[in-house]
Amino acid sequence: MPEFRLDWERAARTGTSEAALCEPKTAAQIDAIIAHAAELGHRLLLTRLGPRKFSQLARAARQSLDYDAETRTAILGGVPATPATGRVAIVCGGTSDLSVAREAARALAFAGEAATLLADVGVAGLWRLTERIDDIRRHRVVIAVAGMEGALFSVLAGLVPCAVIAVPTSVGYGVARGGRTALHAALASCASGLAVVNIDNGFGAAHAALRILGTAAPTMPDADLGSWPT
Amino acid sequence: MPEFRLDWERAARTGTSEAALCEPKTAAQIDAIIAHAAELGHRLLLTRLGPRKFSQLARAARQSLDYDAETRTAILGGVPATPATGRVAIVCGGTSDLSVAREAARALAFAGEAATLLADVGVAGLWRLTERIDDIRRHRVVIAVAGMEGALFSVLAGLVPCAVIAVPTSVGYGVARGGRTALHAALASCASGLAVVNIDNGFGAAHAALRILGTAAPTMPDADLGSWPT
Amino acid sequence: MPEFRLDWERAARTGTSEAALCEPKTAAQIDAIIAHAAELGHRLLLTRLGPRKFSQLARAARQSLDYDAETRTAILGGVPATPATGRVAIVCGGTSDLSVAREAARALAFAGEAATLLADVGVAGLWRLTERIDDIRRHRVVIAVAGMEGALFSVLAGLVPCAVIAVPTSVGYGVARGGRTALHAALASCASGLAVVNIDNGFGAAHAALRILGTAAPTMPDADLGSWPT
Amino acid sequence: MPEFRLDWERAARTGTSEAALCEPKTAAQIDAIIAHAAELGHRLLLTRLGPRKFSQLARAARQSLDYDAETRTAILGGVPATPATGRVAIVCGGTSDLSVAREAARALAFAGEAATLLADVGVAGLWRLTERIDDIRRHRVVIAVAGMEGALFSVLAGLVPCAVIAVPTSVGYGVARGGRTALHAALASCASGLAVVNIDNGFGAAHAALRILGTAAPTMPDADLGSWPT
Amino acid sequence: MPEFRLDWERAARTGTSEAALCEPKTAAQIDAIIAHAAELGHRLLLTRLGPRKFSQLARAARQSLDYDAETRTAILGGVPATPATGRVAIVCGGTSDLSVAREAARALAFAGEAATLLADVGVAGLWRLTERIDDIRRHRVVIAVAGMEGALFSVLAGLVPCAVIAVPTSVGYGVARGGRTALHAALASCASGLAVVNIDNGFGAAHAALRILGTAAPTMPDADLGSWPT
Amino acid sequence: MPEFRLDWERAARTGTSEAALCEPKTAAQIDAIIAHAAELGHRLLLTRLGPRKFSQLARAARQSLDYDAETRTAILGGVPATPATGRVAIVCGGTSDLSVAREAARALAFAGEAATLLADVGVAGLWRLTERIDDIRRHRVVIAVAGMEGALFSVLAGLVPCAVIAVPTSVGYGVARGGRTALHAALASCASGLAVVNIDNGFGAAHAALRILGTAAPTMPDADLGSWPT
Amino acid sequence: MPEFRLDWERAARTGTSEAALCEPKTAAQIDAIIAHAAELGHRLLLTRLGPRKFSQLARAARQSLDYDAETRTAILGGVPATPATGRVAIVCGGTSDLSVAREAARALAFAGEAATLLADVGVAGLWRLTERIDDIRRHRVVIAVAGMEGALFSVLAGLVPCAVIAVPTSVGYGVARGGRTALHAALASCASGLAVVNIDNGFGAAHAALRILGTAAPTMPDADLGSWPT
Amino acid sequence: MPEFRLDWERAARTGTSEAALCEPKTAAQIDAIIAHAAELGHRLLLTRLGPRKFSQLARAARQSLDYDAETRTAILGGVPATPATGRVAIVCGGTSDLSVAREAARALAFAGEAATLLADVGVAGLWRLTERIDDIRRHRVVIAVAGMEGALFSVLAGLVPCAVIAVPTSVGYGVARGGRTALHAALASCASGLAVVNIDNGFGAAHAALRILGTAAPTMPDADLGSWPT
Repeated sequence: MPEFRLDWERAARTGTSEAALCEPKTAAQIDAIIAHAAELGHRLLLTRLGPRKFSQLARAARQSLDYDAETRTAILGGVPATPATGRVAIVCGGTSDLSVAREAARALAFAGEAATLLADVGVAGLWRLTERIDDIRRHRVVIAVAGMEGALFSVLAGLVPCAVIAVPTSVGYGVARGGRTALHAALASCASGLAVVNIDNGFGAAHAALRILGTAAPTMPDADLGSWPT
Repeated sequence: MPEFRLDWERAARTGTSEAALCEPKTAAQIDAIIAHAAELGHRLLLTRLGPRKFSQLARAARQSLDYDAETRTAILGGVPATPATGRVAIVCGGTSDLSVAREAARALAFAGEAATLLADVGVAGLWRLTERIDDIRRHRVVIAVAGMEGALFSVLAGLVPCAVIAVPTSVGYGVARGGRTALHAALASCASGLAVVNIDNGFGAAHAALRILGTAAPTMPDADLGSWPT
Repeated sequence: MPEFRLDWERAARTGTSEAALCEPKTAAQIDAIIAHAAELGHRLLLTRLGPRKFSQLARAARQSLDYDAETRTAILGGVPATPATGRVAIVCGGTSDLSVAREAARALAFAGEAATLLADVGVAGLWRLTERIDDIRRHRVVIAVAGMEGALFSVLAGLVPCAVIAVPTSVGYGVARGGRTALHAALASCASGLAVVNIDNGFGAAHAALRILGTAAPTMPDADLGSWPT
Repeated sequence: MPEFRLDWERAARTGTSEAALCEPKTAAQIDAIIAHAAELGHRLLLTRLGPRKFSQLARAARQSLDYDAETRTAILGGVPATPATGRVAIVCGGTSDLSVAREAARALAFAGEAATLLADVGVAGLWRLTERIDDIRRHRVVIAVAGMEGALFSVLAGLVPCAVIAVPTSVGYGVARGGRTALHAALASCASGLAVVNIDNGFGAAHAALRILGTAAPTMPDADLGSWPT
Repeated sequence: MPEFRLDWERAARTGTSEAALCEPKTAAQIDAIIAHAAELGHRLLLTRLGPRKFSQLARAARQSLDYDAETRTAILGGVPATPATGRVAIVCGGTSDLSVAREAARALAFAGEAATLLADVGVAGLWRLTERIDDIRRHRVVIAVAGMEGALFSVLAGLVPCAVIAVPTSVGYGVARGGRTALHAALASCASGLAVVNIDNGFGAAHAALRILGTAAPTMPDADLGSWPT
Repeated sequence: MPEFRLDWERAARTGTSEAALCEPKTAAQIDAIIAHAAELGHRLLLTRLGPRKFSQLARAARQSLDYDAETRTAILGGVPATPATGRVAIVCGGTSDLSVAREAARALAFAGEAATLLADVGVAGLWRLTERIDDIRRHRVVIAVAGMEGALFSVLAGLVPCAVIAVPTSVGYGVARGGRTALHAALASCASGLAVVNIDNGFGAAHAALRILGTAAPTMPDADLGSWPT
Repeated sequence: MPEFRLDWERAARTGTSEAALCEPKTAAQIDAIIAHAAELGHRLLLTRLGPRKFSQLARAARQSLDYDAETRTAILGGVPATPATGRVAIVCGGTSDLSVAREAARALAFAGEAATLLADVGVAGLWRLTERIDDIRRHRVVIAVAGMEGALFSVLAGLVPCAVIAVPTSVGYGVARGGRTALHAALASCASGLAVVNIDNGFGAAHAALRILGTAAPTMPDADLGSWPT
Repeated sequence: MPEFRLDWERAARTGTSEAALCEPKTAAQIDAIIAHAAELGHRLLLTRLGPRKFSQLARAARQSLDYDAETRTAILGGVPATPATGRVAIVCGGTSDLSVAREAARALAFAGEAATLLADVGVAGLWRLTERIDDIRRHRVVIAVAGMEGALFSVLAGLVPCAVIAVPTSVGYGVARGGRTALHAALASCASGLAVVNIDNGFGAAHAALRILGTAAPTMPDADLGSWPT
């Protein structure tokens, strides 16, 4: 019943490939998006594509993707080579935050940007953060990933002059309330100049980093994609 | 134990067929409602009837219905023919909002009202909205369907003089909070004169449109239906 | 420091005069807006202009306005004559909701649209509502204004086939929470097809009515106005 | 490891049999409670005992109970005969609220109190409520059960002089927020003198009715029960 | 502009005098209500009438009222004599809750019902509650008034078989959140059969008690009153 | 109308003097409490007694008190001498949190317990905290006072083995939401074993410290106090 | 891609063994942590390890653990012998709160600290609490565990001079809101000096008790653990 | 009683002057901070210093400051000259958001960074935004300032490849809820890569911009400042 009018030209126009948020889409819709992108020869990043929904995709779609279950991301069109040293540091304190941190790394890699991942710098062990701080400061952008009470954001922003992007995660229970406490902690931080993205939004943090590095063009993961026959 | 006293006369009285919200009802209750309506020869729209619950209905009930899994709607008594061109435009930005948009279209179709569905006009690609805006303005009523931050509502209401009904959807995660952010954005919009319905309530938007078009009579999807033996 | 580029042409273009939300603006900003509108000969509706801020305006500004303290509205350029019988009914149950109901009436009057105000039809006295219901049904649009638990919205929408716009008010205390309970009641109503606007937003309801009546063009109370020297 | 010191004597002392909230308990804990009650010859009402957990109980426990899946209640020790006409009316508007209404009826029946269940009196069909209102008014206590926006509470309390106990239900979606909108509507009602219980708490409403009728003694569904070996 | 159609006949019809919630009304509106009631010879209870607004009333209005600043209530038409011993006990734990407790007592007195006020029975000093418990149990209805965490409600309901109406108050700070914590504690109490009214709503508790005692007729403090000229 | 039955004997019984929360009480109520305590020769701590309300007290009451405006505390019966070195460290990061920190110090001093106040150890300057950490660790109990995002709680609890009591303060704006973000951060901290009190509750933290030190007996700031004639 | 730098030395340094929060971790991550700890000969407490995830662990991991399904805890390295009489009392009112209470007991046992568990002291049966109160007062620290409205916290804190740690649980429905009502009740208690931990956080309460007893050193259940290969 | 140990050396060390959040501080505390900074010859930015509190400062303090009432900022040590063209664009849609936008401009000016302020680009007049978009795109960083529903954030981020920092403002009423709706809209935006700061936090946005431009060093507006004698 609806007409279709896609916007792949925009991707060609801005130099940035498309991204699609898969969680609220049906497998049939995702299949159609992938087929369309493949036909046009466009690269595509798919986010929040869980293993179960991935397994429901058409075989051709699945075979065309570089899929990573931990980060729930898939890449159509190949992952480009990235430089040996990156301009972005991704810092997270707990094992539990790693999947979000790695989603950010994948989104950066999709754009050809290398990232340094430091996963053992929680506020509980300040000396570890202190020991690594010179390494962290060498980066242009720091993506900080933390759940629970999000104290890492303030401590880190107090120690580095770089741009700091806070990604609150939904790790925690009770009053952690699915990441809202970490989110509010990042926004209300006594360390000024923190920039914050939505809960568990590793992709958004990566895109913000690309904007800061001057290599991004606007992309919209969801709204750009037209309507698909089921 | 309870007595039953149904209100199907009211439907006859007002000229509007009944609708039933199926989500909180048991399959047995829905079966009884359908059987009763069929016996009386009434048409009936069923909303939020998921595929799993549909499959639990009695075979006779299932066979009497025009069921659509994507919109979770079923129609008893046949879908009327609708005019070639509609007075209502349904506009949505993302693929993910389509099921709600189509629920509105189904509810309009049930009442014999055609709708134009435009599915590729998200705020990310303003030119697409601009290109279609003359088409949209030709309609008496515009139903706008959007999740996440709901920016579409304000942009659209700023461009058309028609009645605009905003349907926030539960698409999104983190602070999107199941549609509440889109809902609040619609209500607090800087573009005045927006009328808003509940989250994911495509049916309600359709009914509001029918009221505006002057073809509606009051119907209550749930409260009118009596008590049924289990 | 900023440059100014106003948009009064847009008002000329769409046929709808401007409106300005005064609450968050300084008296100096409002003075500048009025002076500019007067200079260009444009009509202007000012909303949420409390008596105290009104008294802080420049004398010339005050003298040019038709000010109404109860509704906190002011009209620049005169109130047009309205027809004897209106197409819009404004219904409110309690004395306390009257100022919001009258704000809607003023905004309609500014646009030359008459309204019938019915102020004694609370759900507590159902017979009064029943007695008036034939009168109410004669209107194209019903604006329902209610605070506290907002039961009026559902009862009214169950009795009339017209377009119904619910304006929840901040009347009430405790869990009424500044109008949020009435707002949620309107949105979650079992009577379908209700269209809802923000809390205490009589102006927005009037504008929605104008859109429905087909006499509106989009206006934005706040965003259209540029930046003013203090 | 813990010691056990039960309080069944209290039940004997106050004349009211025990009740146990089963949702947060393990099947083993419920089995132990039933066995203990049976051994002492006490009657017992079990609430929120879903079919799945019921099926996990020991066979002896299951066989000793009068179980009702719709209301998720079970009665140990038999359901007493109740008088032909009751002093409590239970009023609910929608089919979806029936299971909560019937939980209240079961709890009253457990205490030997008859209830009149009126299930077709939603605010959408006011005449039905009006027709039944004389019947309702004949009761000492009215338990009103409604979800969504809970307008029934206000309308009903405006029409009867009896004690009215409002039971908001979790029926609805979006801003209905699991019953909170109906709860707030009951508490903020413009019809004064409404008494309110927790969401979906049919049992609590029944107990409040028993207190009002003067036949209750304090019982605590959960806190009285000791610790059980797993 | 609005027409006026008051409902004082209803008061005559039901035997219950009117009540008016004054907080959201202007002094002019209250004056008009009082004048109208006085003219018709009706008694009237005014609630939430603060000292400042009282002083703004017309002199004639002020002189006709029995005003009590602590409870912010005024009575038109005289306070009736009450029996020596009451059927209602009002129990509150802290000095800070007294004004709400006394509002309940005033509303009962307005209806000719005596109340016993026990003000020193907080959960902190359980023995005091224990010592008075036999006295409390002699009443038909207990109104419990408490702020902060509202533990009094559960303790009291566990000790008496009477009808217990909980009035949460806004006493407290931080997470007491204006009475919401006490409200939720009352609703979620482990002691079953508690009936709850809105925060600080001593008047509502009194009216619920009157309904329970069988001496009430429905009155609506706000919705019944028509619209008044300013 | 109410009877009075105070509980000063309890104070004598447990060895702990009374405390009264003054914010929700009238000046007349506070005067009566002070007069009563003075008559009986009891010591008394008054909290949240703002300068304006203090100035409204009777002259005799004011003269009998050791009043401190910054902490809004007053002491009746003299401040005892405290030892040179304390067992409690009070740590706060910002100037803005000092009044709450000092309320805790006053409450400890009232009980004869000295406290070490360290006011310059915010997470922004970690080296300062590190330099003082050996001093802090020498105390039995650490009271940490912080607003905004409350990162201090986690950092501190990660560095000391002492009992740590977190007092979130209402310092901050926007999403700091009156202290709720700091409160949630303390409760959801990744550093385990933090004990938390209500927002701005310096008094409560001091009392918790006294319980830990083994010198406390239960006192209730509000509930113990009877009802007073106005 | 990430580097690993663990912090087991810290455990050796502070004398406190590690703890790991398992809920947000994958089975592979938990396996790696256990293997690493076992290799280094460290003891380890695992919390919130549900039966399903436990069954997904490697067989070697499972065999090395002392697993308890009710409390969802596992201990690596053996449970030490504890003294016959403990310094900590764990008090809970309802059967439903037992699993949280026992998590606290397990965490204390892991640290060699005995606890007395009293499971039948809900506020509904005050005499039971009164009878046991002398026994409870003999302990240095009382951990109180309660859900629903959490009235137990206030009653208990009013009766004992010990340090009292409140653990609100998620037991309850409706406005109990997953433990938030019990949490707020603990924080807003009229009984001063209560120290509160996160909802369902039995482990945190145990750690707070260890800090109070002077036998704790800071440990962080999550943040200390590095990043693991999947 | 407290000791003072300030951290002005840090300012010298990092090259960034201090900033102080004045809202929660007393005039005496602010006076002491200014005097101390002046004595050491440090520059200082004071934020959220309202006219009333400014007038309460010591005369010497007032005379040493460059005070701006609209932005509530004061600068000690002079405002440096800024380049003719800036690298930062500050975009806001409504007159009401200007004070926050200008706070950001002041904070940038304090750091010697020029900003281009565009104040007439609300989403209601898309063509104005389109006309200016080439100008906006020339900047390295865009600070977007908007209240109400915050649709500007998404529209703008969809049109420019620059780093975009969203500053939600508290402009609006009802469900705008003090800026939370705009905040959530920014975080849940369908236009990816938006970086967000706290509500009304123009200063924070400026600092984030400085971090992005590589000219910032970490400063903490509040936590760095020691404790001051009153």
